[in-house]
Amino acid sequence: DGWGLCNMGDVCCPQEAQELSDVERAIETLIKNFHQYSVEGGKETLTPSELRHLVTQQLPHLMPNNCGLEEKIANLGSCNDSKLEFGTFWELIGEAAKSVKLESPVPGS
Amino acid sequence: DGWGLCNMGDVCCPQEAQELSDVERAIETLIKNFHQYSVEGGKETLTPSELRHLVTQQLPHLMPNNCGLEEKIANLGSCNDSKLEFGTFWELIGEAAKSVKLESPVPGS
Repeated sequence: DGWGLCNMGDVCCPQEAQELSDVERAIETLIKNFHQYSVEGGKETLTPSELRHLVTQQLPHLMPNNCGLEEKIANLGSCNDSKLEFGTFWELIGEAAKSVKLESPVPGS
Repeated sequence: DGWGLCNMGDVCCPQEAQELSDVERAIETLIKNFHQYSVEGGKETLTPSELRHLVTQQLPHLMPNNCGLEEKIANLGSCNDSKLEFGTFWELIGEAAKSVKLESPVPGS
């Protein structure tokens, strides 16, 4: 697709020069996913219900049964402005990712 | 490949039931990448030189010219145990990811 990763701190690489690494493409996927769900009330934040949709639809194995999600949403505050910025979203996935262990490939498979 | 994502907090899904979403696969890529570089001195941490290799080889567009990397390494402490755990690695990429803006697809391309 035509999206490009562009670090604001630097001069943006011309699109034709961009061959993202697997790792960069993975980061891009996460960023795009955040913005795909951040529709209501601004592209830069997720509402609690948007976050619930994202987790249910996109993280069924990483955060099954919404594990701990409602607590985390409650901690964001009960006011109307309990919106989630990308940094907080990143921390949330990071917490889940830390508890992941990778299984070794099954020998011979 | 044969790796599976497995959340320690929950019963591990049987491998055959795992159809990871794009987002989960992206997270898996980041976790695998961390462990691919964390060879010396334990699979759970990156040494400063391992971190340099990872950033140079895998994040050339996201963190070009190692932007700010040496400062961050210095902040980890100057002792022998200045090793980077996954959580800190995740924060480091998160900082870079926050400064990313996605370019809209070029119309008609």
